[in-house]
Amino acid sequence: MENGDPALPQIAAQLGPTAVKARVVGITGSPGVGKSTTTNELVRAFRKLDRRVGVLAVDPSSPFSGGAILGDRVRMQDHATDPGVYIRSMSSRGHLGGLAAATPAAVRVLAGAGCDIVLVETVGVGQAEVEIASLADTTLVLLAPGMGDAIQAVKAGILEIADIFVVNKADRDGADATYKDIHGMIALGGSERGPGDWRPRVLKASAVRGEGIEDVVESIDDHEAWLTRTGELTRRREQRAAAEIEALVVAELRARFAELPGVGLHELAARVASGDLDPYAAATRLLEEVA
Amino acid sequence: MENGDPALPQIAAQLGPTAVKARVVGITGSPGVGKSTTTNELVRAFRKLDRRVGVLAVDPSSPFSGGAILGDRVRMQDHATDPGVYIRSMSSRGHLGGLAAATPAAVRVLAGAGCDIVLVETVGVGQAEVEIASLADTTLVLLAPGMGDAIQAVKAGILEIADIFVVNKADRDGADATYKDIHGMIALGGSERGPGDWRPRVLKASAVRGEGIEDVVESIDDHEAWLTRTGELTRRREQRAAAEIEALVVAELRARFAELPGVGLHELAARVASGDLDPYAAATRLLEEVA
Repeated sequence: MENGDPALPQIAAQLGPTAVKARVVGITGSPGVGKSTTTNELVRAFRKLDRRVGVLAVDPSSPFSGGAILGDRVRMQDHATDPGVYIRSMSSRGHLGGLAAATPAAVRVLAGAGCDIVLVETVGVGQAEVEIASLADTTLVLLAPGMGDAIQAVKAGILEIADIFVVNKADRDGADATYKDIHGMIALGGSERGPGDWRPRVLKASAVRGEGIEDVVESIDDHEAWLTRTGELTRRREQRAAAEIEALVVAELRARFAELPGVGLHELAARVASGDLDPYAAATRLLEEVA
Repeated sequence: MENGDPALPQIAAQLGPTAVKARVVGITGSPGVGKSTTTNELVRAFRKLDRRVGVLAVDPSSPFSGGAILGDRVRMQDHATDPGVYIRSMSSRGHLGGLAAATPAAVRVLAGAGCDIVLVETVGVGQAEVEIASLADTTLVLLAPGMGDAIQAVKAGILEIADIFVVNKADRDGADATYKDIHGMIALGGSERGPGDWRPRVLKASAVRGEGIEDVVESIDDHEAWLTRTGELTRRREQRAAAEIEALVVAELRARFAELPGVGLHELAARVASGDLDPYAAATRLLEEVA
């Protein structure tokens, strides 16, 4: 998936309807908030319920860090011998937007391979994470006490995407304050919610101690029941599918731009850079050639 | 620019070659590192040199925050009566990717309006910032002592995009340590640099006290001289123009998808969401209709 293998379309066709059978749960939050530990505990909890679990740890970090490979090894230890768990760290390998294309494809393959649930763990709270979180049926936002995360969450647009907030490290000072801050912000947004809308849950947990994880699992199940009952599940998934199709069309067109004979993207870009042509006129020219 | 006004193509055509006359300097770094203060001091320094300055403060935050409007007012105070300075805070207004389209267009208009230099200040160090920073001829990365920024910079891929590092708040404890950390990381990357390549500068400053700003201006000028001498300026600007053209083509195709008669994106997305069709097959169908 990550390398954009040419066999992907055939694989996708062979997966058939199994590709959409898994529930997709996004887990996001700032670095240091305890995402990996929480993911690990959620895997354990879902396994107790006999559900097969896939984990995609999405790390849009520099190819320098080599984080993905090391990450895989560390994560594997707790579930290494469990055939009902598949864990994969995905790195962007230097391609901006690469993960946006590879992640939904990987989710489909994990579903096709029999995972009942796919956890997509994303690093950080930038725009890229908001985009990746939009892959999920249910999005968990993790916070830790005293990190100013409540404010950062608002800034990064995280508040709008969270279905469930988890204040992790709940045994630490400031956990109650963070808990109240989040509740306050949800109340502020209350006027925009209709009577049947989902009201984001706020939970406390200590993933290191394994405390509060059952409540998180229960809220995930409740959210899924709400999604199904209201038709929101279909709406979210259709939106996700539309974005995926668009991304594939754009990728194909990019490839066509590169192969154009005559006045291609490269020459048009040189003229725009020199001020000889404006970008809108260049885009019109390019469209005439490919579309 | 932010609203994607239909008159944009005409305006762009009228700007002509003036649209590429300004130097574009990106300023990025984590929240709290002193970006606004540094930008403010840079404006002051460039004005002393009698250069006209445009500032685009790019804030990809939630429409909730209203930060852009407040920000404008606060920023304006120091330069409110100076006709040689134009400052604008741009917010994404809820559109992912909206800033990626609007920012280069705004840079062109500011250049056309006579700005010699355009400072593009971006919030945070996520992927969106890396993408926006790629708009710049010269990219400044701001760091502050004791924020763990050196490590975060590596994680976020900031190291690769920085032409000049500025350790701000240099009077604080830990400034020397941060300075050394960055120097160490640049040395580590040294084997990948050829003899004529730009070696990132590391400077100390205290923007609040107005200290070290002249050195920053000097390094920006040195970097521009290097860009011009090596032809790298043309290369970067052609890359930027290509990305801008592609983005416009994609936007136009999105609009066409929405207007398609018969089997449009919406219906294909519904079939993909239900597992009836795979996304690659759907993309192929869509391409046949528009291209």
